[in-house]
Amino acid sequence: MLHSSASTSFCLSFMPIIAKNLLTSPSGFIDFPPPIAKTLEHFLQIIRKHYELHGFIPIETPLVERSEILTAKASGEITNQMYGLRLLNPHPKATDDSKDLALRFDHTIPLARFVCAHLREIKFPFRRYAIGPVFRGEKAKEGRYRQFIQADIDTIGEGELNLAHDAEFVSIISGIFHELNIGPFTIRIGHRKLLNAYFSYLGIPNDNHPQILQAIDKLEKIGQKEVRSLLSKLHLSNSQIDKLLSLLMTSGRDAAHYLDSLKHVATEIGESFTQGVLELRLILQCIQSLRVPESCYAFDLTIARGLDYYTGVVFETRLNNYPELGSIASGGRYDNLTEVYMDKKMPGVGISIGVTRLLLRLLKAGLLPESLGATANMFVTTAESDPSYLTHYLAYAHELREYGIPTEIYLQPKSLAKQLEYAHKRGFTYALIATAKHLKENKLAIRHLPSGRQKELAHHQLMEALNSF
Amino acid sequence: MLHSSASTSFCLSFMPIIAKNLLTSPSGFIDFPPPIAKTLEHFLQIIRKHYELHGFIPIETPLVERSEILTAKASGEITNQMYGLRLLNPHPKATDDSKDLALRFDHTIPLARFVCAHLREIKFPFRRYAIGPVFRGEKAKEGRYRQFIQADIDTIGEGELNLAHDAEFVSIISGIFHELNIGPFTIRIGHRKLLNAYFSYLGIPNDNHPQILQAIDKLEKIGQKEVRSLLSKLHLSNSQIDKLLSLLMTSGRDAAHYLDSLKHVATEIGESFTQGVLELRLILQCIQSLRVPESCYAFDLTIARGLDYYTGVVFETRLNNYPELGSIASGGRYDNLTEVYMDKKMPGVGISIGVTRLLLRLLKAGLLPESLGATANMFVTTAESDPSYLTHYLAYAHELREYGIPTEIYLQPKSLAKQLEYAHKRGFTYALIATAKHLKENKLAIRHLPSGRQKELAHHQLMEALNSF
Repeated sequence: MLHSSASTSFCLSFMPIIAKNLLTSPSGFIDFPPPIAKTLEHFLQIIRKHYELHGFIPIETPLVERSEILTAKASGEITNQMYGLRLLNPHPKATDDSKDLALRFDHTIPLARFVCAHLREIKFPFRRYAIGPVFRGEKAKEGRYRQFIQADIDTIGEGELNLAHDAEFVSIISGIFHELNIGPFTIRIGHRKLLNAYFSYLGIPNDNHPQILQAIDKLEKIGQKEVRSLLSKLHLSNSQIDKLLSLLMTSGRDAAHYLDSLKHVATEIGESFTQGVLELRLILQCIQSLRVPESCYAFDLTIARGLDYYTGVVFETRLNNYPELGSIASGGRYDNLTEVYMDKKMPGVGISIGVTRLLLRLLKAGLLPESLGATANMFVTTAESDPSYLTHYLAYAHELREYGIPTEIYLQPKSLAKQLEYAHKRGFTYALIATAKHLKENKLAIRHLPSGRQKELAHHQLMEALNSF
Repeated sequence: MLHSSASTSFCLSFMPIIAKNLLTSPSGFIDFPPPIAKTLEHFLQIIRKHYELHGFIPIETPLVERSEILTAKASGEITNQMYGLRLLNPHPKATDDSKDLALRFDHTIPLARFVCAHLREIKFPFRRYAIGPVFRGEKAKEGRYRQFIQADIDTIGEGELNLAHDAEFVSIISGIFHELNIGPFTIRIGHRKLLNAYFSYLGIPNDNHPQILQAIDKLEKIGQKEVRSLLSKLHLSNSQIDKLLSLLMTSGRDAAHYLDSLKHVATEIGESFTQGVLELRLILQCIQSLRVPESCYAFDLTIARGLDYYTGVVFETRLNNYPELGSIASGGRYDNLTEVYMDKKMPGVGISIGVTRLLLRLLKAGLLPESLGATANMFVTTAESDPSYLTHYLAYAHELREYGIPTEIYLQPKSLAKQLEYAHKRGFTYALIATAKHLKENKLAIRHLPSGRQKELAHHQLMEALNSF
């Protein structure tokens, strides 16, 4: 066992000392080799693009915050998963101020802290996005990671925030998942106000609402019968359960008809419910104005995420063909972002995409096109091993890059056959070959690596040829 | 003072409890508000682009590694700056395995660990890049941060690595700093072999080399006279000092002439020196083939970075007009990346760009164009406050986004004047205005916010108008 002291490191630096099983990344912390890292980057670029298209701007807060900022509003469960810092080798006489620091576990608390700290510079409504890793020290298991990337987007208002803002998020999610091209998806839109009003109408006391929401949330997973038995254990009468399930099972030909059906029930239930239906109707109008395809969204009262956090509209997104992946983009409206930190009302609405989890699950399900993992587009061989030819090959590589084509050149002294074998294994499709004879005649060859077919051309035809690939 | 226990968090969540001075980010951890975060993203995209153009591929390793991996080769100074993890609220009965973990302090150690762990899948030479935050728990001060982004790029060979690889880095750095457009720069290229050979020729014992290198490194900062006195304190004779400084002051009309001058001296000094000059000559040929502009690089034996790490060619990059910023992209050749972890020779060459430091220094020096901090390109007003008009405005926003124009729409119930004031303060240049009258006539107005000039056009002329801006 190695000690982390400075004095031992020098003599150890000349022998291999780390046991092989320690060379993997720690449990719950993932290594992304090149093809996956490239796909990850591709995902993040698409997400970023749609966030910016909708006028959202980035902020970067540090991965490290003061522990008391992070714990001020966190639940016990979350606090137990928080990673604090410490100096590995604290100086015996100095105080270790890193002990007051911890790693962020989401982007929301840092956003709240940022808004308070930069209140004067921010113009509201503040549309911001934040993409980066967050940390949770929970037991690592399938689909649970200790470090994972969240891509968050929120709109924060000062005092009040028009409902039309909520609709923008449907347009954003839709844009992203269309471009990611991972199959059909449905954004489900719920409203906490409706369920709460209905619970009150049914005479269910407020204290019971969270547990009932939890039961309802399981509807899709465990079915009506099981949910019935859960609700009855929560002391709902059969009549209450019947009415509740009949509301939840309300359906309509499309989103507009569904809202019509709800409106029908609404008169009976009361003003708050009617109000909620009107709000969903406004959101529907906005979504339609933003030209979100109708097949991509649905109203659904059963989604009940974020029990004590969301207070209005809530969102979930599922891949139609892979419901088992769970929600891949979720969020909603909340009353007050900054209540723990200052005395000012800051309502907000936001969504978060769990990028690491999504990516790794898609990979596992075989849903990602291989080509996303491609490396550079062109492989330039050094067909002649004599160093005097090197300048020609480097100049070719430069020429390709000038045209914006990512290009790798092979610079080791290996035979052409070995170079082509390497390029093929690395996943290149095309290789540029220029032998001494080629160079003398100002020619070159482009080889299609999968088939081995090769085409000779004059140097000046290179770009033309590349365009035709 | 708030305690980080779960039981207190609930009752606290209803009152503002955090002292104002705690709402800033912790010392040494920086908040990037939108314009700077956007510029940061812009920088990273340019860096990534040139890395990929040269055939480098990304890997993503976690920010957290096993402490013993990180400390195995680190110096005492670095180990003292390492942040270890711990659970904030460890379970009294469970062991806290997070205590074996620490935050990475560079990208090189994780690369070495990654190469060992994925040895079978990697094809060598392995050209990889890694961009992301690293951590150092040192005292935060001007230009020193506890979390900062490094953009690293390395080529790793198996057994041997052709010298031509080193030249690629000059092309990459040059491409990046040209596109960043922050003024003229010089990539200085040195070679450890030359200085070492010269030291031996002068009869200076090996043990003294590191201190002498440190003294030489200060030449530019403190001048010849001071360096003379430092060298004489290191027991060099006047004759040794004269010869050494005369070598270091060797100059030439351009890089090729400089190498000629060195070659002239070389015959006297010995084979290792001659060999080093030949290696630099090969590198120069490669750099020229890669069409790096001659004004961007120079050979310079005085750069002596990374005392016990680099073993061959070394690089530094400075902004010609801002030498006080120090080196903004540095690196070099090393003998063996993985020596601590396994018994296999893996030579490499790489550079690292300290992005956070570069960005913040450029900002401070006023070297960044303001426009990089721009938010969305178009601001769509909601000129009529009646909600029935909202659908028109949302549809306009959608239309602009379809054309790829980042667009923000104002959705709060404020007067048009207030909306335009907000847009102006936010830094928008153009706003789209459509009053009821406009909409009835299928028209709209584009307002140039800085001047207040406004132009009316028919809806179908919108794109045409945008193209002419």
